[in-house]
Amino acid sequence: MADSLNPKNINELSEEQIINLFAESRHRDHGIGIGDDCSVTDGPNGVKQLVSTDLVIEQVHFRREDISPRALGSKALAVNLSDIAAMGGIPKGFYLSLALPKDLSAHWLTRFRDGLLVLAQRHNISLLGGDTTRSQNDIVISITITGTVKPKHLKLRSMAEPGDVLCVTGSLGDSAAGFKVLSHPDRYSYLSDANRKQLVEHHQEPKPEVAKGKWLAQMEAVHAMIDLSDGLIRDSRHIASQSRCGVDITLDRLPLSAPFKAFHRAQIEQAQDFAAAGGEDYKLLLAIAADDLEEIQKKFKQKFNTPLHQIGTMKKGEPQLRTLRDGAPIKLEEQQFKHFKGS
Amino acid sequence: MADSLNPKNINELSEEQIINLFAESRHRDHGIGIGDDCSVTDGPNGVKQLVSTDLVIEQVHFRREDISPRALGSKALAVNLSDIAAMGGIPKGFYLSLALPKDLSAHWLTRFRDGLLVLAQRHNISLLGGDTTRSQNDIVISITITGTVKPKHLKLRSMAEPGDVLCVTGSLGDSAAGFKVLSHPDRYSYLSDANRKQLVEHHQEPKPEVAKGKWLAQMEAVHAMIDLSDGLIRDSRHIASQSRCGVDITLDRLPLSAPFKAFHRAQIEQAQDFAAAGGEDYKLLLAIAADDLEEIQKKFKQKFNTPLHQIGTMKKGEPQLRTLRDGAPIKLEEQQFKHFKGS
Repeated sequence: MADSLNPKNINELSEEQIINLFAESRHRDHGIGIGDDCSVTDGPNGVKQLVSTDLVIEQVHFRREDISPRALGSKALAVNLSDIAAMGGIPKGFYLSLALPKDLSAHWLTRFRDGLLVLAQRHNISLLGGDTTRSQNDIVISITITGTVKPKHLKLRSMAEPGDVLCVTGSLGDSAAGFKVLSHPDRYSYLSDANRKQLVEHHQEPKPEVAKGKWLAQMEAVHAMIDLSDGLIRDSRHIASQSRCGVDITLDRLPLSAPFKAFHRAQIEQAQDFAAAGGEDYKLLLAIAADDLEEIQKKFKQKFNTPLHQIGTMKKGEPQLRTLRDGAPIKLEEQQFKHFKGS
Repeated sequence: MADSLNPKNINELSEEQIINLFAESRHRDHGIGIGDDCSVTDGPNGVKQLVSTDLVIEQVHFRREDISPRALGSKALAVNLSDIAAMGGIPKGFYLSLALPKDLSAHWLTRFRDGLLVLAQRHNISLLGGDTTRSQNDIVISITITGTVKPKHLKLRSMAEPGDVLCVTGSLGDSAAGFKVLSHPDRYSYLSDANRKQLVEHHQEPKPEVAKGKWLAQMEAVHAMIDLSDGLIRDSRHIASQSRCGVDITLDRLPLSAPFKAFHRAQIEQAQDFAAAGGEDYKLLLAIAADDLEEIQKKFKQKFNTPLHQIGTMKKGEPQLRTLRDGAPIKLEEQQFKHFKGS
């Protein structure tokens, strides 16, 4: 195999470049959904099987002193459940690999297990296998999750159409704000305890929207779904590029929570920009046929007692993203999540 | 959930104790084969789906200066293919998660990819998904592999019967000797270059016995299979405890390669003991109905041009392991792989 790169250091490569390095072994005949939230292959009894995998590493994704083992166990599984939710799937089982440093207490491990298994039980999934080993310094958690979905309910990133309305299932930015609060507690002493707690909780214990994903998947008018893990801007770009459409994001319409507004001291434009960059929201982003929007919003509200927020539209043309405020395009600062070194 | 441990440090726990901590979420109704080389769930068209996952970590499983990136890529996939082989399965696809330190060169990564993809192509499997992230210091490789097997060909660790003959598909100990050569090159300067090379190659580029596993799985007289990853002693114990039989290992019969004998300067008893402890052999260990042994050995030799070595027997009674030499039980030193801290 020829090198497709000039000699470079890893930290000069984007995650996409690294993924593309391995792309030649991705044969489409073995399944669809590659590059989506889950891979899609044939499952039992005519259903499709979904698989997703996530790596969570100390010092990169969390600091041991910032997060309780219980919350960490919950979050490690939640981010995988969110991938199943984004495909409209039903989670089935998971595989857990752990590398643990010697200085870790058994108490820490039991609390980690408790957080993980409580969430597993809530979603009725079982641990099917895994691997344990020691590590030199850092905790490593690798979870692979499986699920199923009926073929007709499958919602890929590539299925959005020009004219579709882009919606999100909940408020944005809370997790990214919670991360900032954890990283620099002194800077945000103006926040009330309740607001601080809610932001940090969004970051540390995201609630995967499995029930919403499953319900939305049954709607024919819902064309495409993705979970918001990289942030609205990046995840919207994923839909746009895979659906070969443009996308407009209406910043004024982004749903923002009260604690998030308090975090930004009510500077709304700044809050909107930060929410658009975000990251780790674990809400669902979906493209819906415009004609059916109102009805689906109404039923969604009845079913989940929370609104489905319209935040943008898919456009004909190049897969480019525009952000609009007061009806006019504005340019946001380039996001921090672009490079591997910053992830 | 109640703590099932007294407060202890992680390094006082065995791998089994850590696995048992999570055991309560393992519901048998979701599948079989838990605690086997792969999990077994329902797959498409009446076949069973196999899944296995392995974590490979720098400083724990390898040192970057000791192994070429190409060999590492090959080995990381090989250990997973070996788990599919042990179930008599046909590998289908895999998921690759990588955590990479900033100082790694892109050249290293392309070589790693090459080693991995050459082996993937040889077994006709595709990369179906994964995750990439940076790491603080060490390379982390997590691979999850899937495969299929016809229900009637499934060979579990629990299926051995008293009276069965225990066999291995190739020579033992080469990998463990190769590891020693790499760790303390000066100690083994008496080895010829060719012998040294062969031992190191066994350690760094194990050949998963997928074709042999698939062939053996079709034989009704083959009752149980496992791949030799933990070493003959430990892996035989896995079969014994899961099949609720005793097991006798005949040390005099262990197949030893010429380079391995040279490594031990022809001290055969010492070589046998070391081969029995071993580790990372990635040969198959299987229990065969005694009446059919001769015929299967003959056909195996015809098919693969290498013998199937009889090395022990399964016994009625407690799931205990005995090692015999010259027909008499002898006690081997307790193995180094027992504790998590030593893995």
